Amino acid sequence: MLCWWLGPSTHPVREEFVITTISDVGEFGVIARVVAGLDAVPSTLIGPGDDAAVIATSDNRVVASTDMLIENRHFRRDWSTAEDVGHKAAARAFSDIAAMGATPSALLVAFGAPGTLELSWVDGLVAGLRAECAAAEAAVVGGDVTEADVITLALTALGDLDGARPVTLGGAQAGDTVAVCGRLGWAAAGFAVLGRGFRSPVQVVNAHRRPEPPYFEGQRAAALGATAMTDVSDGLVADLGHIAEASGVRIDLRAELMDVPAKLREVGAALNVDPLVWVLTGGDDYALVATFPKRTELPDPWRTIGSVAGGEGVRVDGRRWPKGGHEHFRR
Amino acid sequence: MLCWWLGPSTHPVREEFVITTISDVGEFGVIARVVAGLDAVPSTLIGPGDDAAVIATSDNRVVASTDMLIENRHFRRDWSTAEDVGHKAAARAFSDIAAMGATPSALLVAFGAPGTLELSWVDGLVAGLRAECAAAEAAVVGGDVTEADVITLALTALGDLDGARPVTLGGAQAGDTVAVCGRLGWAAAGFAVLGRGFRSPVQVVNAHRRPEPPYFEGQRAAALGATAMTDVSDGLVADLGHIAEASGVRIDLRAELMDVPAKLREVGAALNVDPLVWVLTGGDDYALVATFPKRTELPDPWRTIGSVAGGEGVRVDGRRWPKGGHEHFRR
Repeated sequence: MLCWWLGPSTHPVREEFVITTISDVGEFGVIARVVAGLDAVPSTLIGPGDDAAVIATSDNRVVASTDMLIENRHFRRDWSTAEDVGHKAAARAFSDIAAMGATPSALLVAFGAPGTLELSWVDGLVAGLRAECAAAEAAVVGGDVTEADVITLALTALGDLDGARPVTLGGAQAGDTVAVCGRLGWAAAGFAVLGRGFRSPVQVVNAHRRPEPPYFEGQRAAALGATAMTDVSDGLVADLGHIAEASGVRIDLRAELMDVPAKLREVGAALNVDPLVWVLTGGDDYALVATFPKRTELPDPWRTIGSVAGGEGVRVDGRRWPKGGHEHFRR
Repeated sequence: MLCWWLGPSTHPVREEFVITTISDVGEFGVIARVVAGLDAVPSTLIGPGDDAAVIATSDNRVVASTDMLIENRHFRRDWSTAEDVGHKAAARAFSDIAAMGATPSALLVAFGAPGTLELSWVDGLVAGLRAECAAAEAAVVGGDVTEADVITLALTALGDLDGARPVTLGGAQAGDTVAVCGRLGWAAAGFAVLGRGFRSPVQVVNAHRRPEPPYFEGQRAAALGATAMTDVSDGLVADLGHIAEASGVRIDLRAELMDVPAKLREVGAALNVDPLVWVLTGGDDYALVATFPKRTELPDPWRTIGSVAGGEGVRVDGRRWPKGGHEHFRR
């Protein structure tokens, strides 16, 4: 068994076979593919391969968040490539870091899969994870690989506040402005398109496959004085509901301030769906939404969409909006 | 749907039912059970409930490790209670932190389970996780809950080096002493007992169910000048193999220095197994094994078991020992 995991070239018996599945290389072979030629970032003091990673922080704090994604629940292999899944999983994890006003620094990847999974899928996943890490200026620093019946990913993102205060859900004040940065409704439109068996328009389908969270706008919002912030993972109204609840305030959105891009109107018309519903309730775009003191001068790409008042819940044009959002286990 | 997740007392229609499964309370109900009355530790600056947690570090570094555990692969519900699973999962995670010479600070828990899982199992798991966190002087700071076909846990442990240098796998030098701290072979004996359908002796069965890693001996070993260290998760020989490989050295163990407790000899005699095999190859006890400069005065509970020489691999009484250890996906 010695040196088996270094690959087929060290094991002559297997040279005649084409390696195609995880079982052919084993756990350590998979790990080797994850870590080979890994890009380092300056904050990675000790990367993968030891008992634990060591990551530098610019102050005496670290921001941490974890997410689990399971095949056919959080992604479908017939709708997304392995690279798409890697991009989206990392984006989802880093988005939580940005939502605290921090910047991403590191990613830990726990990965479970059946032994029959093609190695090319693993390679694609790793490529997607790494590319999204590069976009977020972070690095894969560690992980775990295990056998599982379905592809299971648990990603932990770490981030750095760089001396600034964290922006929580609980600081919104009556009188604040509500503003958003990033796409809304695009992933939901893509999901609707895929759900009806179509593959285009590619702009919305790709938005579902690879979100583009505005990672560095979270830190900027904190510097601008954001009083509360979150990322839109479950839908704008649902996620603002968490701010309303944690802050003990009411959030009033104005539909006329919502940007409903021509592309979403076009897809909405084709599918007979009001695209404003995607904008207000669609998740998975990972926009950032924050509250700011009233007179804050908001730079592009932040867009004002409403205001904070005394009370509770989220209203759109004065109308109470159902809480909505996806909840696991609910039948 | 508003306030549903606060529990049955706010929803009169359900008061007549007894809540027994996850589906009855939903994702947010499960989360509420995980975070309710959570013990805080001073390093938890922001705990569960926000987009991400914020954890204080005593220096500008954080140590991080992640592990995935899946029902019927890493644990069996008929062999271990939910509380046992919580204890062991957290112990396994924190053990990696100790193996770097750091002390545990925080735990992030990603949890997947079928909607039919009894809530009492979740409560037991949470109790076990919290109790083990208390033993490690750390806290649950965040997590994620999702639906899954089988119980799936992905735990990320964070730790603090407290100004000290991390102890990696790669620093062992020829001439060093090899020493161990913690139990060896106990969990393997317990696993063997359970595998043959027995439930006693309880000492070994409980060792399988709830390991007792010497969390704070990792930091102590670092202070004593340990040159390399790891935790024994896969078996002493297998894990020392990682040190031998990373350090480019040979590790010589002496069987006569191995502590084979009377209880293991007794169980070995009953099952017709040489208990030394459990001590050398059994995993899941999470002892710490480290190399130290030759003249290091090693305090209890560290026990010398061998030495480091030039070469490669691990030998027991001069005999090359098969690499061994469990590898996922290998048939």
